[in-house]
Amino acid sequence: MQLWLRFEHAGRSGLGRLEGDTIAVHEGDLFAQPRATGQTLRLAEVRLLTPTQPGKMLAIWNNFHALAAKLNLAVPREPLYFVKTANSYLASGATIRAPQSFDGKVVYEGELGVVIGKTCKAISAAEAPGCIFGYTCINDVTAADIIHRDSAFQQWSRAKSFDTFGVFGPVVATGLDPATLTVRTVLNGQERQNYPVSDMIFSPARLVSLISQDMTLYPGDVICCGTSVGAGSMKPGSTIEVHIDGIGTLSNRFE
Amino acid sequence: MQLWLRFEHAGRSGLGRLEGDTIAVHEGDLFAQPRATGQTLRLAEVRLLTPTQPGKMLAIWNNFHALAAKLNLAVPREPLYFVKTANSYLASGATIRAPQSFDGKVVYEGELGVVIGKTCKAISAAEAPGCIFGYTCINDVTAADIIHRDSAFQQWSRAKSFDTFGVFGPVVATGLDPATLTVRTVLNGQERQNYPVSDMIFSPARLVSLISQDMTLYPGDVICCGTSVGAGSMKPGSTIEVHIDGIGTLSNRFE
Repeated sequence: MQLWLRFEHAGRSGLGRLEGDTIAVHEGDLFAQPRATGQTLRLAEVRLLTPTQPGKMLAIWNNFHALAAKLNLAVPREPLYFVKTANSYLASGATIRAPQSFDGKVVYEGELGVVIGKTCKAISAAEAPGCIFGYTCINDVTAADIIHRDSAFQQWSRAKSFDTFGVFGPVVATGLDPATLTVRTVLNGQERQNYPVSDMIFSPARLVSLISQDMTLYPGDVICCGTSVGAGSMKPGSTIEVHIDGIGTLSNRFE
Repeated sequence: MQLWLRFEHAGRSGLGRLEGDTIAVHEGDLFAQPRATGQTLRLAEVRLLTPTQPGKMLAIWNNFHALAAKLNLAVPREPLYFVKTANSYLASGATIRAPQSFDGKVVYEGELGVVIGKTCKAISAAEAPGCIFGYTCINDVTAADIIHRDSAFQQWSRAKSFDTFGVFGPVVATGLDPATLTVRTVLNGQERQNYPVSDMIFSPARLVSLISQDMTLYPGDVICCGTSVGAGSMKPGSTIEVHIDGIGTLSNRFE
């Protein structure tokens, strides 16, 4: 298992592998066998960046049996997804802020994120694990009031794409079996979500396979696998954390 | 007025300004005063690329009074938009293809596209023209059957983001007054759309201002302003053209 991150240090961005709280600095492309430079940095010395720079971030709605049952939603026949645009991307440690124009509810949603490692198109579910580089923690922040306020047009991508609403990190972890993972979301020290990835309707491999029938996926692209029960709104001044054992903790303030 | 394009020639991509059918090759950043190299190429010698490489492409639904009246849609209170992902981007001259997994209707939608020239956030409509670099032709290709086939979740971004469905070009034109423009769409030599941009519900400047309240816009980002009456489906083997006087003709085959 390896933990990869991107960071800013002394005014420059870099790539590294995390071992304990030491970063082994690497050069080259994360998806094409980067080389260790020999330099090391302490985690506390750097500012984290998002662990990849996705060409696209797709996010799934209604992908957990428990949440579908609670909300009385039919199990979907295909993955239902929207887009989180690049302006929304935010790293662990940075501050989530709603735009001044919006004074409605801002909701956290803790999720597992799949990071693509190879360009793939129309692949089978059996081929999908070979195209997945690793996994990350997601906070799919949402301006919930916007989604259904126009009766004719659901505003999913807009409600999810405000600046700072696409939160992911702190690292990408390789070598994990996603079916063994648990997502825990903690708001101001209180656990609000704790659900097993194994309850997913479409597993990470099936998501990658099915979405790749529609669109080419590229290294660094992220698929947010959807949330389960316990998502809720945040008050300004909150700290929101998404924990996944084996990956780490995605921690942000909301102001 | 200037016409800017990107091209591939002799295995390299380049930037140029089109004068008649001659390209004055430039170097540098389109949005930061590129410099003429002195080299010229004939338009017929190059393969066109998309005129920008957008960090995001947003597209508006229900933005023309004539189409809203025809479909009996309420005039929206705010711009209603979805995302076309980067894998969908396609240049003039390239071939639109539906994925093998999809055998439903593929629809053309001729539109005006706004190309952002400056990073902007929460700007007024009065400031917006200063943030618009220019205008391009859009074909917002759509897998129409997908949008409403799940009764709980509208699949706008998915239906619009198949590979090759985000068609724009051939150039970005500067110095135009968008209110004077007309969008004409021609399918296999027959005119199918011919509508004035002045019929828009939200003008380009208002779109840029309102969307910038939600999310930062960056140079090269594209806003597709929505279509009006006459959009329809294409059969494989069709040629589809979007003409806007002052910009040019976006021409593609659909197979």
